[in-house]
This record gives sequence, C-alpha cells and structure tokens, in this order.
Amino acid sequence: MQPITGSGVAKIVDSGNPEFKVGDIVYGTTGWEEYSLITNPQGLFKIQHTDVPLSYYTGILGMPGLTAYAGFYEVCSPKKGEYVFVSAASGAVGQLVGQFAKLMGCYVVGSAGSKEKVDLLKSKFGFDDAFNYKEECDLNAALKRYFPQGIDIYFENVGGKTLDAVLLNMRVRGRIAVCGMISQYNLDPPDGITNLMHIVYGRVRIEGFSVSDYVDQYSKFLDFMLPHIREGKIVYVEDIAEGLESGPFALVGLFSGCNVGKQVVLVARE
Amino acid sequence: MQPITGSGVAKIVDSGNPEFKVGDIVYGTTGWEEYSLITNPQGLFKIQHTDVPLSYYTGILGMPGLTAYAGFYEVCSPKKGEYVFVSAASGAVGQLVGQFAKLMGCYVVGSAGSKEKVDLLKSKFGFDDAFNYKEECDLNAALKRYFPQGIDIYFENVGGKTLDAVLLNMRVRGRIAVCGMISQYNLDPPDGITNLMHIVYGRVRIEGFSVSDYVDQYSKFLDFMLPHIREGKIVYVEDIAEGLESGPFALVGLFSGCNVGKQVVLVARE
Repeated sequence: MQPITGSGVAKIVDSGNPEFKVGDIVYGTTGWEEYSLITNPQGLFKIQHTDVPLSYYTGILGMPGLTAYAGFYEVCSPKKGEYVFVSAASGAVGQLVGQFAKLMGCYVVGSAGSKEKVDLLKSKFGFDDAFNYKEECDLNAALKRYFPQGIDIYFENVGGKTLDAVLLNMRVRGRIAVCGMISQYNLDPPDGITNLMHIVYGRVRIEGFSVSDYVDQYSKFLDFMLPHIREGKIVYVEDIAEGLESGPFALVGLFSGCNVGKQVVLVARE
Repeated sequence: MQPITGSGVAKIVDSGNPEFKVGDIVYGTTGWEEYSLITNPQGLFKIQHTDVPLSYYTGILGMPGLTAYAGFYEVCSPKKGEYVFVSAASGAVGQLVGQFAKLMGCYVVGSAGSKEKVDLLKSKFGFDDAFNYKEECDLNAALKRYFPQGIDIYFENVGGKTLDAVLLNMRVRGRIAVCGMISQYNLDPPDGITNLMHIVYGRVRIEGFSVSDYVDQYSKFLDFMLPHIREGKIVYVEDIAEGLESGPFALVGLFSGCNVGKQVVLVARE
C-alpha cells in the first residue's frame, strides 16, 4: 500500500541520485512515515538556508507560503490603501496574506474561529482588526461593521456563508482570490451561494488559483521571504503535533479548526 | 414625473446645443415617448453612418453590441480553437458573441428557450450547435453532450441553474464573463449556486463586467463592425414591436423570453 503523502522535511540517509547526497536536508512530497523511499525526486528540493526553523519549509517557505505570495501579489492585484479581508486568517496561508497586505499598505481584517486566533491576528500578525465568525449570527452585518466602505480584496479560504456575505460587500472592481473552500469540502450538497449577481453590479472578479501554476516563482519568493523572516518583519505561528502517531488527529482537526497556526506533525527532531 | 428611459434612436427637431443640429440622427438615452426633451446630452451620440438600419444603434451598433465586443474580446480572452458556450444566445448580446466566437475560430454552442430560437442560432448565426434549455431536465448532462471535452469560455447572460451546471464542465483555466443573470433578477431568494468549488479545482476566472467601462473603445468597435455588417459577415435579428403602446408588453416579455432577437420598440418611422 502507498503511504499517505504530504509536504515534509527530511534528511537523506541513502541516495542513488547524484543530486541528493547523504546528509542533505530536503523538503517536498514525503510519506507520513519515519523513513520514506522516494522514487520520484521531481517533487523534492534541497534546502539551502538552514538558519530558519526547518519546519518552515512545510509552510511559510514551502507551498503554503508560495500560495499566499502568488495568490496575494498575482491574483489579487493589490494596491496600497485597499481594503482586504482574509478568512481562515490564522491558518498557514491566511496569516501570511494578512502580513503581505500590511507590507503593501492595505487595511486588513481577518476572520477566524476562536478568541485565541483572533487575538493572535491582532497582536502577532498585525491585522488592523479581526473577528470570530462563530460569534457573528449575521456575517453581512459583521462585514459592514468592519468594512463600512466595502471590500476591495477578499482572500477566500472557506467558501459557503462567508463568501455569500462577502459578495454583498465587495467594492466596484473588487477581486476575490479563491485559494480554498474548506467549509464546503465535506458538505453534500454544499451551501448554495445566492449573491453572485453582485459580481455584475460591481464588476467583481473571482478567480480560483493553484500554487502549481507559480512554482517558477519560488526562488524570487525565497529571496523576498528570507530577509523578512530574519529581520522579524514577517512572523509565523505553527501548531506542532509531536510524534507520527498524532498525525491522524492533527489532520482531522483541520476541518474543525482545532489548530492554531500552520499544523505541523513532528515525526523526528533529527 | 420623469419618463422611463432606454436606449433609443431619434431625430433632432429642435436644439440649443451647437453639437446637435435640427435633422441630426442621434442615439443614446432617450425617453419612452414620442418626443423627448434631453437636458443632459452626454449620453447622446450623433449617428455618422446611416447606410445600416437605424435601429441597429439600439443594438448591434449600440451598447449591446459594445457589450458583446468588450465582453468577448476583453473579458473572455478567447483563443482560436477554444470551446465557447453562450446562454440567452439569440438575444441582443448573445447572437453577437456567438458570431465573434466563430470569427475567432472557436467552437460555439448556444442555449435558448424555444425551437425557433435554436433553429435561428444554427441556421442564421452560424453556431456549431444549440439547444433548448427548457427541454433539458439535466443541464449538466446536456452540457456534457455538447462539450464532451469541457468548456473554455462561458458567456453568462442568465445565471442560476445554468451557471451551476456550467461550473461542473469548465476546463482548466476557463473563463466566465458575467454579462447578466436575467433568470435571477426577479427571484427572491435567488437560486443557490452549489458548484463554486470547481473554480478552485480548475483555476477558473469569473468576472462581472459593464459596458460602461469600455465606452472609450466605441470607435474601434464601430470600425470593426461596419464592414462586417455591410459584407454580411455579421448578421443581426431584431424583434420589432410596432408602436409606443406595445412597449410595456415588449419589456415584460423579455423576462419570459417572448422576443426572438433584440427587442426593439418602433415608436415612429420618421
């Protein structure tokens, strides 16, 4: 049986491939296991910069980081002073989008599912404001409170009722970058979205995207991120589950929002 | 009381504005009345080319024409050989989008609400195929029949169930230009769209647009259209209701699809 795979960091213990030597630290698609046999090294990259936590290469310096970078800078076409809303804002991608938006000079508000996460958004990630969507019985009213002037950019991670409320609050020529719709993946049928007409009224663009279309930007992305991380201008929060055996619980917990920050499973320290 | 206004063609019978002389033929925003007093001539344009039916300036050579032109060429980013679907395809905008798509070398299928309209799409406007959506109990199955390889471009005029079915059939990097959602304007609540997740899977772009953003392209558009019309390479079908008194019925009929082609109300021949 094939093991479940995921985005992992690993040390090469044996290699028949001249590009990867014993002792090299790599990141990419690895198995959920202590030792992985990787026969297709195309999805594997050697880590050059080890002065940051290696787990960052599963997140802020890996595909989630590049997702936030490409999704915000390329898909959202942001401009200084614009109003940005991020859902699942304390997650691996959302926390970065909010920080990119602040670096760009935008006003940014995030939503998350607990007081702890909301506090983190404001105190640690520099969001201008944040709210707990579980405490809002009327999401449209909440968005009108946080964005009386409307939303220019919505970075979509959740879908469903949040998206439907956002559509009522988009400004003319607003953009919605659709990274994911985690609230909908396990719903059958999914929530019906009733406010799409507003994309005509406001000439709004909604665009789904995938990080796989932006891998050629990885080295530019790394050059941008590393100095910001070293200088503390971009911070990152991980939720580390210790031990391979904690993996299944950590995975399932994502769908009910148990994690605070990027969920990482620590298989081994060395 | 202000009269209802619409897109009309008129002859100047009196003028205090040096740009408009008695006898000039103009098109633009006029009242639903035999004589209009126009105090704001910003929305009024002098007709230079009178060798085509003057009513064309309310449609193919007016805002609906420019809507089809900008919507297709600018918003849809079409490429030769792509698969194009148009809803409300026999309407003022749809019939042009289909012909533009053929000029571009695309494969184009239209949907409409009667056999007469479907025949028109195939026999007169050169659509590769067409179907009557009222006869399809499963729109997703119908689209899979007409687009076994999927849809690259959807020119959206109707919204609702058609949009939901289209989302299941979009190809990777497909584009949906949202011109209107006529099936939804009088629904409360509107139909819920449940398949938006597919815009993530397929990296699909959905974009609402308004012709008002493209008025600076009008003279380029006219230079493109006039030779095509004169040479019969682009054709146009109007549904002419005779007499101002037929206006209300013609307007209401739009929402149940009574018209075949662009609905025009003929107030006076001179």
